[in-house]
Formats: sequence, C-alpha cells, structure tokens
Amino acid sequence: MNFSKRIQIMEQSPIRKLSKDAQRIKEKGIKVYHLNIGQPDLKIPKDFFERLQNYDSEHLKYSESEGISELRKAISEYYKRYDLCFDMDEILITNGASEAILFSLIAICNSKDNILVPEPFYSNYSNFAKSADIEIKSIKSNKDYSLANYDSISSIIDNNTKAILLSHPSNPTGHVYTAEEIEIIKAIALDYDLWVISDEAYRDFIYTDSKFISLASIEEIKDRTILIDSASKRFSACGARIGNIASKNKAFLNEILKLCQTRLCAPTLEQIGATELYNIDPMLLEEDRLEYNKRRDFLFNELSSDSNFICTKPEGAFYLMVKIPGINTEDFAEWLINDFVYNNETVLVCPAKGFYSTEGLGIDEMRLSYVLNVDDLEKACTILKKGIAEYKK
Amino acid sequence: MNFSKRIQIMEQSPIRKLSKDAQRIKEKGIKVYHLNIGQPDLKIPKDFFERLQNYDSEHLKYSESEGISELRKAISEYYKRYDLCFDMDEILITNGASEAILFSLIAICNSKDNILVPEPFYSNYSNFAKSADIEIKSIKSNKDYSLANYDSISSIIDNNTKAILLSHPSNPTGHVYTAEEIEIIKAIALDYDLWVISDEAYRDFIYTDSKFISLASIEEIKDRTILIDSASKRFSACGARIGNIASKNKAFLNEILKLCQTRLCAPTLEQIGATELYNIDPMLLEEDRLEYNKRRDFLFNELSSDSNFICTKPEGAFYLMVKIPGINTEDFAEWLINDFVYNNETVLVCPAKGFYSTEGLGIDEMRLSYVLNVDDLEKACTILKKGIAEYKK
Repeated sequence: MNFSKRIQIMEQSPIRKLSKDAQRIKEKGIKVYHLNIGQPDLKIPKDFFERLQNYDSEHLKYSESEGISELRKAISEYYKRYDLCFDMDEILITNGASEAILFSLIAICNSKDNILVPEPFYSNYSNFAKSADIEIKSIKSNKDYSLANYDSISSIIDNNTKAILLSHPSNPTGHVYTAEEIEIIKAIALDYDLWVISDEAYRDFIYTDSKFISLASIEEIKDRTILIDSASKRFSACGARIGNIASKNKAFLNEILKLCQTRLCAPTLEQIGATELYNIDPMLLEEDRLEYNKRRDFLFNELSSDSNFICTKPEGAFYLMVKIPGINTEDFAEWLINDFVYNNETVLVCPAKGFYSTEGLGIDEMRLSYVLNVDDLEKACTILKKGIAEYKK
Repeated sequence: MNFSKRIQIMEQSPIRKLSKDAQRIKEKGIKVYHLNIGQPDLKIPKDFFERLQNYDSEHLKYSESEGISELRKAISEYYKRYDLCFDMDEILITNGASEAILFSLIAICNSKDNILVPEPFYSNYSNFAKSADIEIKSIKSNKDYSLANYDSISSIIDNNTKAILLSHPSNPTGHVYTAEEIEIIKAIALDYDLWVISDEAYRDFIYTDSKFISLASIEEIKDRTILIDSASKRFSACGARIGNIASKNKAFLNEILKLCQTRLCAPTLEQIGATELYNIDPMLLEEDRLEYNKRRDFLFNELSSDSNFICTKPEGAFYLMVKIPGINTEDFAEWLINDFVYNNETVLVCPAKGFYSTEGLGIDEMRLSYVLNVDDLEKACTILKKGIAEYKK
C-alpha cells in the first residue's frame, strides 16, 4: 500500500497551494486580490451561454472522442487568422490544454525519457512530466528570459531527449520568442531529431509591435511540431476546460486518438459552447488584448517604481515575474495571505520556485497575474508595497 | 521523432473503432442500432438542464481542483443510500471515471508495476494501464464470469503487483460479485498488501434479489479501497464527463489532489448540473433500473433462443456477453456494419477480444449493450439473427 515514486515527487501546485488559506481569510470577511492564478475577470462572450440556452435536448450524449466537428472547424477557421493551416482532421479536442500536453508527452516519451523546457516554465509542466515518469531538463534562460543559445541547449541533450516544450508567449515570464530564437529551436529540433511542443494558449495577447511567429508556421519543422491550445484564457472561459492539439503529422494524430478514445470524450456541452467562442468577432479579442496591455503597463510601472521589486516588462500573456532580492517569496506569500491586511484587504501571489527545476532558482521571485482591472490592481499594488515594507521589518 | 513504446502498444478502442464505418453507413441513409457502446437512450433528468438554464453568470471560472463543494456533498448523500460513509472531503471530482482510474493507477504504480484485473474487463482499463506504463495481469474468470479462487489469483501475484482493479457490477459481463467472492478479494488484498480499485459506475443497475455489496463497505480494507464512480451511466449523462474518486485514506487523497491540481479542474458547468442529478428522487433511478431489467430479459431471451448464440444472463450493468462459437467476431462486426442490411437497417456490435489480455480469448465473443428500448432491441435482434445466418453461408 505504498504510493508510486512519480506521485511522491510531484509537488502541490504553487498556484493553488495557498488557495485554502485564501478561502479561510475570505470567510473572515477579508477581501483577497487573486494575483496568483490566471483567472481573468473579463466576461466570457455572451455567445457561449446563448448557445447553451438554445440547447434543447433531453439527452447529453458522449461526443466523438476527437471532438465535435463544428468546434474543430471553428478552430480551423480561427487558425487562418494567424496563417496557420490546419484542417479539422488535424485538430483533436482535449480537456483543456492540460490534457493536450499530458497526451503529447505520453505519445512521444518512454518512462525515463526527458524533454527540454526553457526555464522558468509553467509549473504544471513539471507535474505532467513526473506523472508520466518523464524528466524535465531545464534550459536556463538569459536574465531577460530570452532563450539560451544553440550550444548551451545542445549541451544538455542526451539520447533520451525526445522533445522541446515551451509556452509561447511564455507563462510565467510573458516572453515572446523572436525569429532568431525560433531559428535556434528549429535547428535544435532538426539536428537532434526532436519533437517541438508549442503551447500557444496566450497567442492572442501580444503587446509588442513585432509579429507573433507561431512554431507551427515554420515549414521545416511542420511535421514535428505539436501545437497546444486552449479556449480558457483566450475567451475567459477557464471553467469550460476546452483545449486542443493541432498537428500536421497524421501518424502522431492517430496515436493521440487512442488516448482520446480511452477517456471517451471531452464534455459535450462545453464543446458546443466553445464553438461559438471561436466564432466571435475577432474585434472582441482585440478589445481584451488592449485591456490586458493597459493592465500590464500599469502593473509594471507601479512595481518598477518601488525599489523593492525588479521586473522585466512582459511582451505577451498576462503574467509578470517580479524579483524581490533577499526575500523568500514562499514565506512572503504565506505571510501576506495569513498575517497581513491593509484596509481589510490582502493579496494572494504565486511564489516562483515551482516554475524552476534548477535547485535554488526562483526563490526570490514571484509571478503576478494581471487579470484584474486597473482599480483592483492599484489596490493590490498598494498592499504589496505596504506588505513588503512591513515584512522587511 | 519516434513514438513511445507505451502508445504503440495501446490499441484503438474496440468500442469506438468501427464508429467511422457506422457514420459512413448512416450517411448512406441506413439506420444503425448501436449495441456497441454504453450510451443509454434514456433521458437525462430534467433537473440538469433546468439548473443550467438558471446559471446566470457572465463568467465561467475554474472550479476548485477537488471539485465544487455542492457536488461533493450531493455525492456524499447519495452514498448513504448504500450505507457508504464518505464525507465530502473524501470525494474528489474527476473528468469521468476514466480520469479517476488513470489517476489512481499513477498514484500507486511505478512504471513496470502491474495490477490484477478479472478478465474479461472494460477494454479501456488496458489502455489506461499501458499509457501509464503499467502491466495488467489478468485473472481468468470461470465460465460464468465469476471470480477465480484464492489460489489461482495468488499464483500470478509478484513483487510488482500493486492493486486489484475490478468493475462491480462488471462491464462487460454484468457479473455482480457475491459475498464469497468479495471475501477472496479482501483476503488477497490483505495478504499481499494490495490496493483495491473498485469501479462501481453501474452500482444502481442490479437485477438480482441479493443485496449489492460495495467493496468500499468492507471494514478491514476500508483504508486500501479506492472507489471509482461516474454520473454517466447512472443518470444517462455520459456527455457531462463527471466522475469521482472516494477513499477513506487521507494520504491517498492528498496524492490524488496533486494530479487534480495539475489539470486544474473538471468542467464547472457540468459539475453544477451533475449536483442536481445526485439530488434527484431515488425513485427515478429505480424506474431506470426496471427499464434496463426489462431490456436485459428481452435481449437475453431473444438470443438464447437462437442456437448460434450462447450467453450468460447478466446480473447487473447493461451489457450482455455473447459467444458465437466458431466465429471471429471482429470480422463479423466489420461485415455486419459494412456489408449487411435488413430493411435498410443494420447493427453495430463490439467484438470482445479487446476485453481480454490473454492471447486467444474473446475472439468468438461480443459485447452487446442493452441501452436501446425493447422495440429497437427487437429489430436489432432480428438483424443479428439474419446476419449470422447469412454470414455463416
């Protein structure tokens, strides 16, 4: 009656670990600003619920394991805006991007194989890998979170390295990979015969002038690139749990389909609703992007103006990595939620240690999500600033 | 750019493999009776959609990773009807029973470990195990699908055996484990220090007079029993994908919670709807049970009266295993859907080979689901009888 080694080395999500403390504090009547989780406060487009209001059925049947056709078609159309060409047959619907990533890892890695991931990375990548008995070899990023060079990446590759996995734009850093960096990824993938798993769930939220380049648009690696996607952040539809895999590699899709069939299907109603999300006017997405851009600027400026905090301006997604030199952010986060209030309010932040697999890194960093409106962000920043001053005493 | 060994040894679901053929046939205007899949034609209780009609929100947020409280409470109440005592804290919501099973296997097995499963078994058990790099050691059942004796089970146990997994009542055989059989499972679990994973998704559909005994009700193994459950079959809510794990072992639940957090949450809306399902009047479930009982009797009598078919009367669930001596049911199923029509109709069946891991077993068996009303079952039986006569020519 022991537990497996793989589950024992998995860690509690740093993003959700302190949620119970937050719950307890809220029950005491204290308001908590959640900067810990990528849960947007923006509204889900009304088309989602309108469509479900019209779902006039007495049955709620399994859908096709690969996902319902109309959703796969809608995603195929959405991709065209980014010059990405995927037929509906090249798209499989999953339970969030989470399942898409886990399935991809299972399909390409044996136990004890490893994958390369630029560090810091979305903390759950590490847990997905561990649950499938796969090791992460982290690529140490440069100070501004840009990609390491070809040689330093190739130096950590071994015979069991099967893929490079990255989020683009990056959760947690907001880094958007440039043409030069994508050249490096391409060269590594081709030279070492690796799969490329590109998690582009935040594709629509880019704040720089340079064009976003999807890994899936690079001709030479089209057969080896696995595109991971999600409706959660794009349409403020996190609770729908609708993600997808897209690939030009038919053999890969056939293997993934076995996993899809094994778990039967993604939730039927949510797939129907998500179809309407992918059919909305793209201008609505642009409005959200402008809103996040405003929040990014605000949060970055507020924290940069306080010498306790060091941050790199994110170029995409809706996260900001903040360094607080000399401070253990796990302790600080726990203290902040449990022991500090200002005007009967406090803030929940996400310590960054879990975004690193290299021992000792990330201890003095935290990730903040700018998913709250500017008014709330302003109050949260005041609490953070007062909090860190108090904590340092 | 190879695929993993584990994915390559996974097989396409026998239940869903011929779905594409069925789709093509339907597009030609031919009616297909689906006896291949456990997709009930009964209505989902109206409370599900009524509750969602009242879901008046502009947001669709992540739920708690462990599932929403009201659903966990409702399941806790439902269990009391079976004298099963689980607090809401001992219940975790999953994406169908599928995810509950996969998570349980990951939590207790290392790569290359094995689990015992009475054969024939739900074919996806095999794929869940393979995807997690775990081996299934099948316990060969007796002719009437009852459990083998203590000695023959213990003879296949080795140091890497971590659990016994079974469905109770059984998919695909409809077998309901007796007090004597449960004694054997208990003794094996205690003597060899194994976990017991009991998939009781069909608990409410029992057609014998003897009382159903849940594995979770056995005092001596309460700490080692992992109860797997699902709203799919119970409430004809397959597309909702709401399952759960229940356990009295807090350490186990803590390990599973890591997996739950990693994939964030189960779909929010479907959890809310499923709460209402667990709150319905138990008499509605009893009505469904009586309906399935009628269908079972009809299908069993129809096929037993034809000497081509040999079947054991199922005691629970809604499946019937049928032996057709001398016939390869994979070939027969493919021929039936693609090449045989009667009155412009045909039948899709599920060959049973995939329910066995022992080479050579199940080749002349098929699983039929009695999830269609008696009128449809009658037509399906006529087609099956005419079909087998024609096929034998």
